Amino acid sequence: MIHGKDREIIMKELQELIEYADNTLKNGEDLPSEIKNSILNCTKNNGFAGIAQINTKIGDLEYNAKKIAKYIKFAENIGLESVIFPELALTGFPLEDILQRYKVVVEDNVKWIEGLAKLTHNTIALVGFIEPYEGKYYNSIGILHKGKIQGIVRKSICPQNPASNDYKYQEFSKNRGTVYNGYAITIGEDIFADNNSDYRPLDELSKENPKLYINCSAFYSKTNRELLKNNTIAELSKKYNTPFIYVNQIGANDNILFEGLSSLYSDGNLISRAKYAEEQFLLVNPYKNEGVIYPLPQGFEKEIADKPEFSLDYKNELERTYKALILGIKDYFGKCGFKRAVLGLSGGLDSTICAVLLADAIGKENVIGISMPSHITSKESKSDAEQLANNLGINFFEAPIRSIIDTTSETFSNLFNQAQTKWTDRYKKSFTPDNIQARSRAMILWGVSNEFPSCIPIATSDKSEAYMGYATINGDMSGGFAPIADITKTKLFALARWLNKNRKEKNVIPESIILKRPGAELAINPKTGKALIAEDALMPYDFLDEIIWRIENLNQEYNELLNTEFVYEKNNNISREQKIEWLDKFYNRMSKAFYKWSISAPSLMIEEHSINSRDYNQLITSCGINYKGTTNEHIIKSLS
Amino acid sequence: MIHGKDREIIMKELQELIEYADNTLKNGEDLPSEIKNSILNCTKNNGFAGIAQINTKIGDLEYNAKKIAKYIKFAENIGLESVIFPELALTGFPLEDILQRYKVVVEDNVKWIEGLAKLTHNTIALVGFIEPYEGKYYNSIGILHKGKIQGIVRKSICPQNPASNDYKYQEFSKNRGTVYNGYAITIGEDIFADNNSDYRPLDELSKENPKLYINCSAFYSKTNRELLKNNTIAELSKKYNTPFIYVNQIGANDNILFEGLSSLYSDGNLISRAKYAEEQFLLVNPYKNEGVIYPLPQGFEKEIADKPEFSLDYKNELERTYKALILGIKDYFGKCGFKRAVLGLSGGLDSTICAVLLADAIGKENVIGISMPSHITSKESKSDAEQLANNLGINFFEAPIRSIIDTTSETFSNLFNQAQTKWTDRYKKSFTPDNIQARSRAMILWGVSNEFPSCIPIATSDKSEAYMGYATINGDMSGGFAPIADITKTKLFALARWLNKNRKEKNVIPESIILKRPGAELAINPKTGKALIAEDALMPYDFLDEIIWRIENLNQEYNELLNTEFVYEKNNNISREQKIEWLDKFYNRMSKAFYKWSISAPSLMIEEHSINSRDYNQLITSCGINYKGTTNEHIIKSLS
Repeated sequence: MIHGKDREIIMKELQELIEYADNTLKNGEDLPSEIKNSILNCTKNNGFAGIAQINTKIGDLEYNAKKIAKYIKFAENIGLESVIFPELALTGFPLEDILQRYKVVVEDNVKWIEGLAKLTHNTIALVGFIEPYEGKYYNSIGILHKGKIQGIVRKSICPQNPASNDYKYQEFSKNRGTVYNGYAITIGEDIFADNNSDYRPLDELSKENPKLYINCSAFYSKTNRELLKNNTIAELSKKYNTPFIYVNQIGANDNILFEGLSSLYSDGNLISRAKYAEEQFLLVNPYKNEGVIYPLPQGFEKEIADKPEFSLDYKNELERTYKALILGIKDYFGKCGFKRAVLGLSGGLDSTICAVLLADAIGKENVIGISMPSHITSKESKSDAEQLANNLGINFFEAPIRSIIDTTSETFSNLFNQAQTKWTDRYKKSFTPDNIQARSRAMILWGVSNEFPSCIPIATSDKSEAYMGYATINGDMSGGFAPIADITKTKLFALARWLNKNRKEKNVIPESIILKRPGAELAINPKTGKALIAEDALMPYDFLDEIIWRIENLNQEYNELLNTEFVYEKNNNISREQKIEWLDKFYNRMSKAFYKWSISAPSLMIEEHSINSRDYNQLITSCGINYKGTTNEHIIKSLS
Repeated sequence: MIHGKDREIIMKELQELIEYADNTLKNGEDLPSEIKNSILNCTKNNGFAGIAQINTKIGDLEYNAKKIAKYIKFAENIGLESVIFPELALTGFPLEDILQRYKVVVEDNVKWIEGLAKLTHNTIALVGFIEPYEGKYYNSIGILHKGKIQGIVRKSICPQNPASNDYKYQEFSKNRGTVYNGYAITIGEDIFADNNSDYRPLDELSKENPKLYINCSAFYSKTNRELLKNNTIAELSKKYNTPFIYVNQIGANDNILFEGLSSLYSDGNLISRAKYAEEQFLLVNPYKNEGVIYPLPQGFEKEIADKPEFSLDYKNELERTYKALILGIKDYFGKCGFKRAVLGLSGGLDSTICAVLLADAIGKENVIGISMPSHITSKESKSDAEQLANNLGINFFEAPIRSIIDTTSETFSNLFNQAQTKWTDRYKKSFTPDNIQARSRAMILWGVSNEFPSCIPIATSDKSEAYMGYATINGDMSGGFAPIADITKTKLFALARWLNKNRKEKNVIPESIILKRPGAELAINPKTGKALIAEDALMPYDFLDEIIWRIENLNQEYNELLNTEFVYEKNNNISREQKIEWLDKFYNRMSKAFYKWSISAPSLMIEEHSINSRDYNQLITSCGINYKGTTNEHIIKSLS
């Protein structure tokens, strides 16, 4: 056994060979025999395990099984002791109500796992699947070896989290897990059973003195959970004095991100870790503490360990945010069979960031950006949009909407004049002219998606605006996918700077786009004679985003927000009346935004919490909550 | 004590008096003393209980508390022994993530329940609220009596159903419930704890020999659950040889219907039952088996007991369906603060039914129907729409969309010609022209809602079309509320006939609307030269609706559907190839419709199951499921 620095170098080289071999096979070529032999020299009969950190398609058994088969064959080929797949690798996760409606998926998954078992010889393959047994469904791992299913391990602990409704259709088993070949195998949340649990699967397994613990998971990504998992598994490897392999899936399924970061721990230490949000075949030797650590973005681990505090400095998060957003787009498009995107380019920040992300995720040739100027649109907005498109190399067209607006306005005018004879309280000033513009633009984008194959329009709203309901229904809210719906405006500004600095092509985003103050350019501010600025209609984004951050991360409410000093207050001198006005505006606007949240385009959850319907549920009809609280005096008066 | 027929008559008269008194108080008038005395003569010191089957607003504590206070005072006034409110009457139900974000709601609800306790003297009031205790939240009933909270009962059994996510924030207590004044009180699902449960709250309570069992509930409405509840409670009243009062809330909260039907059971028999889906103060005397049964629609009870079988004869369900739909609209509008609706009137069935329902629910003067003819729209469609509006007495205007279509088409044409230089595979025939029409119409409806206060546009899509994705995004799918989204087309035809027969004003729906074959009137069928009929594009609605019914009620899948004889097949001679073609079309279209389901306008769940996101969850990215199943031969070939 080689120790220290040398060992690391050898493992790194071996891992590079594995990745080269994996890519070669992916491209459909045969593995050159010298590569295969180099690998075999190291791995053969040496206890190596392959961690297949894969991305699966929910319910697409054939796609998943073929991917699993590829890695089983690869592992056999290079003499691994085992190849380990994530929880429910065969079916994909989460299955949700598919288990209720489609018995055929369960029946077929049994046939596929039996087919996969036949591929195994010397290597043990651990493959997650749904095991039907006596009319119930178990979330299980099949132990495939020597052409057969040698054993089955069932998940013990039922998770209750936003990513699944497993409890509805799955049974959880308190039968002791199987130890096979010295492997003590558990699934997902089983690792969280602690001294307070009435059943502790790991303690039970430890009685058989396993040589290796393995946990197959499909954990969705939340920063705090990552730290918890890391600490928990490290601790377990120490407690049982046995190496511990953790295998997690990667991928974005609709709104849920799975981050990977599969790992090997030994004696409380992290020995090896796979990449963040990327498919990877990671080679480890648990018995010899061998493996490669793919680094996290700088400072990230420190950050998640700290007590959270709001800051406009997002630098430690941006690399991950970017990777997650790209995976979110790629997987939504790829898994749904879309190839192209069309979006409006306003010359503003939101559509700019969306365009960059789309170009990176699906290819610049597959993106059409359209400038759709109205009578409000400034010359600068148009030229900024065009400049961005040129820098990025995406397709760019102009489609002025003035004539649509004029015709629509005329139709509206006739109709409204008739209608106000019946409904006499017509608004003196309405949002109708603003919204005509936003809706005409969406109509054009949907038109393109109707006219060209595999193309979806993009909803460019951001999280700050979603909280405020500051987006137009059937307008900028509307689209087949909403890439940045879970990112606040101030973070988007930081991301713009990060993209200009860190993408291969530097500075694609014109400085003028980053410097301008955001606005929908749908109306003229009578005070300035220029297009209305969003912060004038709402409040400063620095303040707004701190409200959102405090709600989502510290669970603060109206009165706590009022009595906490915001970063914005430290930097700007604002009165308590001003703060109350902004907080009131926030809660008033938010109470009316629940409907908009309910019809939002699909988007990936990125932050610790979100208003994505998977993460946060509040009924539209609950808009009458008194967020400020009530006094006893008011109650006595009200009830008397 | 008066027996038999006479007793029934007396109870009926007493209940009528109570309702008169209740209405008098609702109108803000004082109760005439002779009425009060008549009631008091019967009730005073006689063990009467008032069942307050109320409708609450989620999170609006002041609104709910004032309503509860009114009934407590009323009960005191007329000498009742008790007045009983539903589960979580003070906070409304379901609370969902409100409990996570707003501690202030819990804190305030404690203040309000203390305030309500002060109103009680001789009458015992049982009021549902959230009890915070040692950092945890309990779903509890406060026993309010003699000015104080005399005791608190906690819910024991955690429900797991689509209407709530209680498990996330609420604790469930296995401490024995309180018996107070001989009342054994339980909450909601506690009644379903049976011999298989590890804790049975009712058995525990029975040890104290209570004189009365009371269950306070907020059960959402599903037909099969109704039968289960009825049988369960009847059986419990027999098992314990003690009367049993069941109090359920009514109301529609977003997509969830609560049906009321609060009841008194004794010795296995139903003694009294409140109305379906209506707020009511029901008077019962549990000790003397006294109360009034408000009948269900004829045949309904028989129907729910039978083994379900598909039939195009919906007559036994229609009265309930109508009541539920009306409550759904009323509550969504009322609880959100909307008063008016605007909808497109195409002269087709869907918009027609929506118009009738809206007129009945919010008042004909608050409805605007707009005919928006395009070049495809027939003369008959326009005149049918106008005729319907006139019959109903709603506001009616015409807003032709030809000029909008022309301008938009011109803009599109310029843009598409540019775009196809880059994306050369432009569709030869697309849905763009169809969708321009649907989207222009929605733009007009949203315009009206922007221009007039408290007005929302109506999405008129039905359930048959939603399953098929046969509706336009930002078009007929779009709206602030979708009244009939959970009703299939064949049931809508039956409902049209029912409305013509059973509404006060007969035959408001022109016969020509009921007789015409449905179609979106967005395109011309080249074969006929007339507007395309939906059944030509899809399949016969009789067949389609039977697929949906079998999936939702019998949980059937592709192969079972293929091998079951449909009613349509009995009446029409179709080949197996034809059936396969339709089934394939159904599954293909449905797999592509998940996105549309995810952005659908709010709508009430009506049927046993639905594709409403509260009831059914399947990820958009799971579109690759093989619904027909796979053979072992195919698997072996795929994996080799």
